[in-house]
Amino acid sequence: MIRKLLLGLAGLAVVTGAVFAASHATAPHKGAIKARQSVMQLRSHYLGQLGAMAKAEVPYDAEAAANAAANLALVNTLDQSMMWPRGSDNASAENTRALPVIWTDGGIGAKANTFNAAVDAMKAAAGTDLASLQAAIGPLGKACGACHEDYRQSNR
Amino acid sequence: MIRKLLLGLAGLAVVTGAVFAASHATAPHKGAIKARQSVMQLRSHYLGQLGAMAKAEVPYDAEAAANAAANLALVNTLDQSMMWPRGSDNASAENTRALPVIWTDGGIGAKANTFNAAVDAMKAAAGTDLASLQAAIGPLGKACGACHEDYRQSNR
Repeated sequence: MIRKLLLGLAGLAVVTGAVFAASHATAPHKGAIKARQSVMQLRSHYLGQLGAMAKAEVPYDAEAAANAAANLALVNTLDQSMMWPRGSDNASAENTRALPVIWTDGGIGAKANTFNAAVDAMKAAAGTDLASLQAAIGPLGKACGACHEDYRQSNR
Repeated sequence: MIRKLLLGLAGLAVVTGAVFAASHATAPHKGAIKARQSVMQLRSHYLGQLGAMAKAEVPYDAEAAANAAANLALVNTLDQSMMWPRGSDNASAENTRALPVIWTDGGIGAKANTFNAAVDAMKAAAGTDLASLQAAIGPLGKACGACHEDYRQSNR
């Protein structure tokens, strides 16, 4: 899982414009931007199921919780190597909040590792009991926030 | 893979409104609709990579082709059981082209099976050679189209 995400991040530097002809995009990097936003949206979908249980908005269900966490982990295994091309930041492309600093400050690898570890911890914890799920969701939310704070424009 | 998608489809009938509190949606089923559109978008992302090779827009690369096909198959393993709630059709909800007939005509299971089989065939073929990829992409595109034609509004 970590390997895949790091492969994706390593791919930031090498993806070329030619490859992106594949995405049927009309605006530059439109397909790549929509794809990575879809990854984020799916994370939100599965995390939302866990969050609702953590906050007791819905009753804790071990099987449903384990399933949501397993799917959150599964999303991390999707290849993102063509989703973060240079020039797809919010200063160069449309409909994205991705800040240019993603590609320049060298900090995203460590943040990705922290996020992946938090997802793995949630996968291990979610089906155990509500307390374990609740203990795992703090670090996971924090790992989400750590990237968004530094790398995502705060308002559109 | 087929099991997961069928589970997702079976889930159409049983998902309740309460569960959807989990999605942090403001409009009814907004989260579910965005999640399933994200699944479609990711399919488009990986299929686009295969299509570009099939049409020789980019050079055939066995490893890249196998990877794109494996990821297309991976998307099919994501749990969609909370993405297709009743009442999330385009007559009842916003920002969706999903026709109400999805939930009523009983045809989607067979179409899903055909699609899953076409994805599996592509996964087996993509890394072999360009001719195998090209042979697999026709049935795959046809399987996409079969659903879209019957179950998706043709224009927004």
